[in-house]
Amino acid sequence: MTVTDDYLAHNADYASRFEGPLPMPPSKHVAIVACMDARLDVYRMLGIGEGEAHVIRNAGGVVTDDAIRSLAISQRLLGTREVILIHHTDCGMLTFTDDAFRRAIADETGVKPPWASEAFPDVAEDVRQSLRRIQISPFVTAHVSLRGFVFDVATGRLDEVTP
Amino acid sequence: MTVTDDYLAHNADYASRFEGPLPMPPSKHVAIVACMDARLDVYRMLGIGEGEAHVIRNAGGVVTDDAIRSLAISQRLLGTREVILIHHTDCGMLTFTDDAFRRAIADETGVKPPWASEAFPDVAEDVRQSLRRIQISPFVTAHVSLRGFVFDVATGRLDEVTP
Repeated sequence: MTVTDDYLAHNADYASRFEGPLPMPPSKHVAIVACMDARLDVYRMLGIGEGEAHVIRNAGGVVTDDAIRSLAISQRLLGTREVILIHHTDCGMLTFTDDAFRRAIADETGVKPPWASEAFPDVAEDVRQSLRRIQISPFVTAHVSLRGFVFDVATGRLDEVTP
Repeated sequence: MTVTDDYLAHNADYASRFEGPLPMPPSKHVAIVACMDARLDVYRMLGIGEGEAHVIRNAGGVVTDDAIRSLAISQRLLGTREVILIHHTDCGMLTFTDDAFRRAIADETGVKPPWASEAFPDVAEDVRQSLRRIQISPFVTAHVSLRGFVFDVATGRLDEVTP
């Protein structure tokens, strides 16, 4: 029995209490970009209700081209107007370098990934980098609020990063 | 006052009850790739506890190069061994075509996005496409379980997609 099977059993319980469906566009017009880290329960951390906000997540919570794709669809087709970026303390992305990661993969598989790992040495500075990537994007421009935060995995607090 | 401010007030309450920190590696060794859709509370849907699973999300829940980057970091550096893919019914990605989306952006901004929108006409078929993208990747190979599902936004149920 896998963890996947265990999670599916939980889903049967969830569905038995489910009240739906809700409309497709996020009711609070918010899009969030956060790290994939297992300790970040984004809905609970911010008190988000189902149907309120788009949640985009990847390794680091970095504004990659794929995050720009998702934000462009979120704003242009589904009307979100605020963007919240969330990195966090004790992030795995602080523990390696892009060069070492790609070299290890190349050594093992014979193929060097054709993308950067997006590892970073400073969490707050990478939030600023992600804020800037949105600011220079011609595709993500509809937001009335754009703010970045570092989630502290020891305290549960979001601390804002000054741009 | 923005919704962001409202969410930050919720976070203060969350932090006041927070018990941490938890370890960095996901304790259940699972990585999930799901759509950013606001109706998908992935933790509640599967009964996931904090610290258990990586959660990667983007427009569509599509296995893009950025999802491969995140999964490679998840498996190689943080030891996840199961992958769960989640698309859903009533997805925004069913409502447009890549050609029309990119043309609309080009018409408005003068710049055509250098990436595909990843819109799709069939949810289950796109889950299969995402499963195949993982199967052919040299960078994401460590999983003992790889399964794809469609979440029904009307019932809360996950229905498995046969590969």
